[in-house]
Amino acid sequence: MTEQEPLRIGLVLFPGFQALDAFGPLDVLNTLSWSHPLTISLLSSSLSPVTTQNPLVPGSTGQKILPTHTFADAPPLDALIVPGGFGTRLVTTPPIQDAIAYVRTVYPSLKYLITVCTGSLLTARTGILDGKQATTNKKAFREIERQFPQVQWVARARWVVDGNIWTASGVSAGIDVALAWVAEVWGEQVADEVARGVEVDRRRDSRDDPFAVVHGV
Amino acid sequence: MTEQEPLRIGLVLFPGFQALDAFGPLDVLNTLSWSHPLTISLLSSSLSPVTTQNPLVPGSTGQKILPTHTFADAPPLDALIVPGGFGTRLVTTPPIQDAIAYVRTVYPSLKYLITVCTGSLLTARTGILDGKQATTNKKAFREIERQFPQVQWVARARWVVDGNIWTASGVSAGIDVALAWVAEVWGEQVADEVARGVEVDRRRDSRDDPFAVVHGV
Repeated sequence: MTEQEPLRIGLVLFPGFQALDAFGPLDVLNTLSWSHPLTISLLSSSLSPVTTQNPLVPGSTGQKILPTHTFADAPPLDALIVPGGFGTRLVTTPPIQDAIAYVRTVYPSLKYLITVCTGSLLTARTGILDGKQATTNKKAFREIERQFPQVQWVARARWVVDGNIWTASGVSAGIDVALAWVAEVWGEQVADEVARGVEVDRRRDSRDDPFAVVHGV
Repeated sequence: MTEQEPLRIGLVLFPGFQALDAFGPLDVLNTLSWSHPLTISLLSSSLSPVTTQNPLVPGSTGQKILPTHTFADAPPLDALIVPGGFGTRLVTTPPIQDAIAYVRTVYPSLKYLITVCTGSLLTARTGILDGKQATTNKKAFREIERQFPQVQWVARARWVVDGNIWTASGVSAGIDVALAWVAEVWGEQVADEVARGVEVDRRRDSRDDPFAVVHGV
């Protein structure tokens, strides 16, 4: 274990975040917290419950999660996780504008920034990814690449690490990046123990990405 | 697609449910709902937010989810999902007693019952699994087998189907059982499409279970 203090982790919530983008990494970290002290804050533009319902599909199903802090009252953090989901497309709405502004402002104080799926699309809007290697959801890859050509998008990657920025491919790749990050910070044995506990076949090779091929990128 | 009507799906919430046990299947179903109408109700003993914090580990991290209905006011359902987690161990507490009573009462009206991880431990307490084949979390397997010898526990199984009861192995196996169940109800192509969308390598063989070996059962 390379960290002595409890790590302070935050996760950004906005309407239309993809449930598994958030709860894959959160479940890995909850399980880690049974043996290693850490804190998790759920940050949003207000303290109202935040839905996972896809805002582009009326009548689709969603669940509501309670934030612990607003962006304005966020505690100091060591690491921030940004999930994706179709909510990232609503760039003119205040919750997403607030999320973009918060990520841009807090990044210089973070030890780690982790994005899952189109969490990298939200983060690209801050400019933080300019000139950096990153990956994203493979179905949306070409569209995002066209929109942000100043980012060095990597097509065949389950996740990409560039400096202190960890970006994952779509949805369930959040579990893989979370376990890889736990291995980096707490060590391989701890990551293996958590993976066995949640019965996940840990991907060890960040290039092991069948979905680049499936989605033709 | 074999179902004409929107399927009405419920998920049981109780303090100390494991986040990924619930949000693996929920994310599969949320994604399915973008193309196929269905409803999801989150049921608990009250409408208060329900935490994923492990009640056996003070100071561990958890997130709070909002139920949509109480067990007393639950709508009619076609399918019920029962997640696991260390909360299932608190058998003398009202939320778990209420959950056990609800599962026992509602089962005869269901088309499908799906358990994830120690959701099968909670369900075993209802007597519904007596004489049936089922599986559960592999780390807890021997303990649960000793406690409920009247259930035909299957050690090497990512999931088990016996009649209308689908039981999954630990935590992330909920994603596999959800996709297998989607294939059964909506067809293989729909399940493949959802799996590609959430970038999950669908397990097609329910006996493909590395964790029976890992945990020595």
